[in-house]
Amino acid sequence: MKLIRYGEAGKEKPGVIIDGKRYALPGFEYDYNEAFFADGGLERLSTYISVNKEKLEEISDEVRLGSAVARPSKIICIGLNFADHAAESGAQVPKEPVVFFKATSSLVGPNDDVIIPRGSTKTDWEVELAVVISKKASYVEEAEALDYVAGYVLHNDYSEREYQLERGGQWVKGKSCDTFAPLGPFLATQDEIADVNNLKMWLTVNGKTYQDGTSANLIFKIPFLISYLSQFMTLLPGDVISTGTPAGVGLGIKPEPVYLKAGDVVELGIEGLGSSKQNLVAWSKG
Amino acid sequence: MKLIRYGEAGKEKPGVIIDGKRYALPGFEYDYNEAFFADGGLERLSTYISVNKEKLEEISDEVRLGSAVARPSKIICIGLNFADHAAESGAQVPKEPVVFFKATSSLVGPNDDVIIPRGSTKTDWEVELAVVISKKASYVEEAEALDYVAGYVLHNDYSEREYQLERGGQWVKGKSCDTFAPLGPFLATQDEIADVNNLKMWLTVNGKTYQDGTSANLIFKIPFLISYLSQFMTLLPGDVISTGTPAGVGLGIKPEPVYLKAGDVVELGIEGLGSSKQNLVAWSKG
Repeated sequence: MKLIRYGEAGKEKPGVIIDGKRYALPGFEYDYNEAFFADGGLERLSTYISVNKEKLEEISDEVRLGSAVARPSKIICIGLNFADHAAESGAQVPKEPVVFFKATSSLVGPNDDVIIPRGSTKTDWEVELAVVISKKASYVEEAEALDYVAGYVLHNDYSEREYQLERGGQWVKGKSCDTFAPLGPFLATQDEIADVNNLKMWLTVNGKTYQDGTSANLIFKIPFLISYLSQFMTLLPGDVISTGTPAGVGLGIKPEPVYLKAGDVVELGIEGLGSSKQNLVAWSKG
Repeated sequence: MKLIRYGEAGKEKPGVIIDGKRYALPGFEYDYNEAFFADGGLERLSTYISVNKEKLEEISDEVRLGSAVARPSKIICIGLNFADHAAESGAQVPKEPVVFFKATSSLVGPNDDVIIPRGSTKTDWEVELAVVISKKASYVEEAEALDYVAGYVLHNDYSEREYQLERGGQWVKGKSCDTFAPLGPFLATQDEIADVNNLKMWLTVNGKTYQDGTSANLIFKIPFLISYLSQFMTLLPGDVISTGTPAGVGLGIKPEPVYLKAGDVVELGIEGLGSSKQNLVAWSKG
């Protein structure tokens, strides 16, 4: 299944994509949130679709998409999980995963505007494959880790490099700005993706390709990451793990880094997970 | 007002402390969560108490307390915010606040057992003054920052020092284990605290005093912290900011660090914000 959330920001409704068309789910009363995943929501949705196949209401491709999942308890990101990206960042390939959080208040729809923070000059992009957790995971073995996966979703892990790297200490300051986590267009359940370790990943800015990678090059693979993270914290249903970005971020461009400015258009995609498009806008007093 | 949440874990009910006694709030239908704070909950609670003064039901001091606020969107912590603690950690006093997140899944009641993670040998304590946000805060001026404060609460920012400092990269791994954020006993609204910048803070392990500080020594004060953080992310109602710990953590003890083991008892308190007590227990398959 391919799960979407559509409609006005903050009032999204659940939907699905079937054969490339978007459908509403009349009478299906659940948002795609922690309770939904915890409570067998995916099975219930599957049953709902079987039973109501004829009654689904097609909705316009013009309708706004929200984040493919409702605000989770956490967005966990893996840093430097591609050797080529570690190199362009001037960092060593890590011996074990580098882990940081993004504030969940940064979550937006896949095609929403992205706001360049006030005074920011180093807003950067990162196409990433994100994993959504289906059930509570604590001290999970790697061999069983995929049992804890609801599915996969496209994520742009926007990053303000000055805030992240030049303002003292931890990365969270450069990762958590509002609109810095466009998530979607859809959550694809595991059965939709033949081989999650072999998906093309790409990102363009104003039509020029900057990132052109593949999930085959993930240093730490998804089952390992889930097992690893679950040693340090309990993963909750609906939690998002963003697995890292390949080479080609603005920070790494030679001879000079390239950063985003108002008016820029970022497009990105992952094979099987669709694409998204963000217009960059300047911060203004809301 | 002094707000408590009491009862079985995951099913806490809202209550208050008045003149040292705990009261239930029959018919008051709100948990102390994001919606409560966003929606004028403190005013509503104040009105409820005035109207129902005679009807409040006293509850036993034996009843379990939960975290004083329901799970927030984020727990933001400030690192190295006391000069003496920076020195004992072998770190410089930071030029601007060091910021990290704790997973909100680490939140527990003030007197709940704290679980030493599987295989952990460096579980440590940190008495901290935490601030709870009352309304959405983005790009807030320092002079107005206290308008965004619901109140203050005692927090023990448990930390696994190996996970935090020796396992690569970011601190989040050592801050987010389950039970690592006992929060309470109560949330004190601002009017309860005469001078938040002059509160004694203390912590003992098995009756021996390890931390004996005062909030007067915070390097970055609360209004500055709120303003600062709100430049990097939107603070949401109910969000928790933990402002840092004074000297005396286990990591800093000479000649050898002291870490917690199963059977240890940690007690801590802040003047005006009550005290809490945690028994340390070994991890076991749940």
